[in-house]
Amino acid sequence: MADHGANIDILVSEVGPRDGLQSIAAIMPTEAKKAWIAAEAAAGVREIEVGSFVPAKLLPQLADTAEIVAFAKTIPELTVAVLVPNARGAAAAIAAGADKITLPLSVSETHSLANLRRTHAQVIEEAKDIAALIAAQPAGQRPHFEGSLSTVFGCTLEGPIPDAQIARLAEALMAAGCDEVGLSDTTGYADPAAVKRLIALVRGVAGEGALTGIHLHNTRGLGLANALAALECGLTTLDSSLGGLGGCPFAPGASGNIVTEDLVFMLEAMGLRTGIDIDALIAVRSIVATALPGEPLYGLVPDAGLPLGFAPASAFRKEHIDA
Amino acid sequence: MADHGANIDILVSEVGPRDGLQSIAAIMPTEAKKAWIAAEAAAGVREIEVGSFVPAKLLPQLADTAEIVAFAKTIPELTVAVLVPNARGAAAAIAAGADKITLPLSVSETHSLANLRRTHAQVIEEAKDIAALIAAQPAGQRPHFEGSLSTVFGCTLEGPIPDAQIARLAEALMAAGCDEVGLSDTTGYADPAAVKRLIALVRGVAGEGALTGIHLHNTRGLGLANALAALECGLTTLDSSLGGLGGCPFAPGASGNIVTEDLVFMLEAMGLRTGIDIDALIAVRSIVATALPGEPLYGLVPDAGLPLGFAPASAFRKEHIDA
Repeated sequence: MADHGANIDILVSEVGPRDGLQSIAAIMPTEAKKAWIAAEAAAGVREIEVGSFVPAKLLPQLADTAEIVAFAKTIPELTVAVLVPNARGAAAAIAAGADKITLPLSVSETHSLANLRRTHAQVIEEAKDIAALIAAQPAGQRPHFEGSLSTVFGCTLEGPIPDAQIARLAEALMAAGCDEVGLSDTTGYADPAAVKRLIALVRGVAGEGALTGIHLHNTRGLGLANALAALECGLTTLDSSLGGLGGCPFAPGASGNIVTEDLVFMLEAMGLRTGIDIDALIAVRSIVATALPGEPLYGLVPDAGLPLGFAPASAFRKEHIDA
Repeated sequence: MADHGANIDILVSEVGPRDGLQSIAAIMPTEAKKAWIAAEAAAGVREIEVGSFVPAKLLPQLADTAEIVAFAKTIPELTVAVLVPNARGAAAAIAAGADKITLPLSVSETHSLANLRRTHAQVIEEAKDIAALIAAQPAGQRPHFEGSLSTVFGCTLEGPIPDAQIARLAEALMAAGCDEVGLSDTTGYADPAAVKRLIALVRGVAGEGALTGIHLHNTRGLGLANALAALECGLTTLDSSLGGLGGCPFAPGASGNIVTEDLVFMLEAMGLRTGIDIDALIAVRSIVATALPGEPLYGLVPDAGLPLGFAPASAFRKEHIDA
């Protein structure tokens, strides 16, 4: 089990500044990103995926990732996570001082080739190179290294991916030197039964402690039900995006990532401590809304409000409510 | 356990024609209601709450309930359910030939007084009168009688309701002659842990077989997660509304009831047979959209589509897809 520190049962990992921003056309100014990250951290969020080390010409939205990492590293108690597509990105992430590096591996090779222009074997080679880069760092300065199995609940190009292929790739990522593997519902195909089945499958090959987190989307409305299934399996890290940022414009309400605000509400209502002050979290939406005019923000708790007499599991840190 | 017939694991009970329509200002023409009900039944829906026997001046949207019940009764294999506020409504429901009668009892007495102008004791008396009316019918023509515990997950006026009060009222409804009790998240306050806790509480006093169904809202985005929690407790009847009809206009995306289309997708994806053809179900939306111009319809599956290679648990009845 991951140790998320005192007074935290479930680590909510905010991915909006990376996954949310890379999914939309608008480019958020660097200062707004910093304000967003600082405000979420102040609300109690302990891990934020702040960017991706990809060539700026591919994702101009994330061209300032090194600067954002450097800024986020000044925030106490915050795990600064980044995505990298390859060893070159990982070298940049290490140089910037990232605490956690995630390398996606699409279990659909068709998707891997279309998206990253790499075969499975090539991505596994990158993983080995990244592990070597990390191992070369001084002890205490080595970032945590996660291999993320994307399209693991099915691919829009290939459909369902065979269990044996998923198991083989999870094993290969661990053998390449990943500290853990994660599951990613890139396509919004997951359902609660599939979540439970794949967690068991991957744990079977990677080991119980090597799978603690899941990245879910709400494309078909099942995001929080899938999160519940993951919790019931004992997963302790859930990715989500403030305002569900990164929704598909063609489908009103179809947020991409699960919505941080609604997820935190569910967890706190269930008695699971996130360490996050919901009111302070909801207040962060105005930063994002101001910096991205016209971009839809999702989430139902911000509109509906908290239930009368709501008692969250986390003891609120009052200074954040008043801030 | 409820017996939902061959090839059905979970009974999806459509409440749109009652709960959806009573929540919106527009009045749907009677012929459109009939077309809606017929089309959903043709898609495989086996239970529909078609209306409510309340005074027409209170709910003009449902003034044609007797005619709708008579029509729905002509559809083979369909359980025709109605809501009644009191024994007078139940007498009308019985006269119309309803198969199932639901009497709501708000466990918040403040809410009961504000909504129905009745104390708990008065509602329990109505339940006794209804049970007597039903008992007076010839064997084989007695409708199923459910007492529904509304505001059971908390009240917007009182906040949380004490467990002891909920238990006492569940017991009183059964003693009054209800065949079963249901749980209703009237306020959208439920979370998965509360769902599990209250199911155990009510079963403890009413008996295992006396609680098979739950009525959930998606006000705070937790509707399907709560449904999953109910499924895990062994509940076999889930209420939902096509298009989430009855959403709050002030909160975009805040559907009231959980969305039938998304619920059926979740169940079928999990391997639970609903007997419902999702494509045919989604096609029913056009009937509702045409009859209620400008009324928002919710649901993410209709926009996102089914996953590539999706294999529903229910064997589709092809004639409905082609119809």
